[in-house]
Amino acid sequence: MQPLQQEDAQRSTELHQEVQHFYARQMLHLDNGHAVEWAATFTEDGVFAANAHPQPTQGRAQIESGAREAARKLAEQGLQRRHWLGMLQVDEDVDGHITARSYALIIETPVNGQAALRLSCTCDDVLVRVDGRLQVLRREVHRDDIR
Amino acid sequence: MQPLQQEDAQRSTELHQEVQHFYARQMLHLDNGHAVEWAATFTEDGVFAANAHPQPTQGRAQIESGAREAARKLAEQGLQRRHWLGMLQVDEDVDGHITARSYALIIETPVNGQAALRLSCTCDDVLVRVDGRLQVLRREVHRDDIR
Amino acid sequence: MQPLQQEDAQRSTELHQEVQHFYARQMLHLDNGHAVEWAATFTEDGVFAANAHPQPTQGRAQIESGAREAARKLAEQGLQRRHWLGMLQVDEDVDGHITARSYALIIETPVNGQAALRLSCTCDDVLVRVDGRLQVLRREVHRDDIR
Repeated sequence: MQPLQQEDAQRSTELHQEVQHFYARQMLHLDNGHAVEWAATFTEDGVFAANAHPQPTQGRAQIESGAREAARKLAEQGLQRRHWLGMLQVDEDVDGHITARSYALIIETPVNGQAALRLSCTCDDVLVRVDGRLQVLRREVHRDDIR
Repeated sequence: MQPLQQEDAQRSTELHQEVQHFYARQMLHLDNGHAVEWAATFTEDGVFAANAHPQPTQGRAQIESGAREAARKLAEQGLQRRHWLGMLQVDEDVDGHITARSYALIIETPVNGQAALRLSCTCDDVLVRVDGRLQVLRREVHRDDIR
Repeated sequence: MQPLQQEDAQRSTELHQEVQHFYARQMLHLDNGHAVEWAATFTEDGVFAANAHPQPTQGRAQIESGAREAARKLAEQGLQRRHWLGMLQVDEDVDGHITARSYALIIETPVNGQAALRLSCTCDDVLVRVDGRLQVLRREVHRDDIR
């Protein structure tokens, strides 16, 4: 194996771990209803597009208020949501854009009730590094039930 | 900690990431119904054995036609399948054979319907490196409902 | 990027993989009903606390007998359980204590029956290294249905 390939492999391993870690932190913010921290994982002009939404959500203010409203409804219904991302593929372009593709499951548990699988999705992200930290520039979530 | 152990740990980290990446790509091919690309993730003489099948599927041609037939049926039924592998253990033998053990879930979503957990399995692979890329030499899938 | 940061990132990647591997082995022991091997993944005085239990389980002997009793009941009911951990965050303190936070799902499959999601939880571990190997010093499992 060539030194360069070794270096490439090395880098991709670190990045793969970094993205996994980033997603774990990000989704815990969302599931905990921490709307400000959640919004801060997107770039200032970050975009959240979904095949379930007529329009993409754009910019941190919109992303934050969307998360706050969703958290309010879930609290009203007594539901704890958990977002699982898995089956992750990470690739970095020469310009520093990172594409991260994953599968996503949303699990919901009512107080004193039965945990249930609510949604299966794919999640396609473009991530960038801002001051050394990963942020989502654009996310596209595709629900498997809407085709 | 000895330098050698450090090196060993390093190698295993890269391999663990590489296998995770390989599975993500491989299962996306299967779930997208890309039978040719799916079959190419096995060696030419690759074996797919399952406790749900009377005989193992052997060789790329059989593996490809099996995947094509499965994709046809799922499309007919309007079902999107997602294969999740997780809880992965990877070990490399001195002869370059890689054993990868994982848990597997199959999630199914009908058009405009409710996502559901269909199967829980274990997946035991022997992987080899062909021209630098991982391929499955032998896979054994064990469904938890069949004992 | 500074050499020191590079080294830090590297270390955390190895540790992240090591914890993933540890969990895969640990949960396979539990799901296989190997109570002795399961208990050995905790420190001698390891603690297993859960919001579903009135008292924490303390020490390997208790942890082992708890797992043996659980395995006996599941076998009686013909249930195969699978514990999935995911969305993992790992951080190491300067004193060598490792905190590992994850989401957990418990999947259950009856003989000849339908796999089902039984529980969604969070799992907060303090891990330590004993003779070079990870062990659980303290685990806190929080079921999402009990709040």
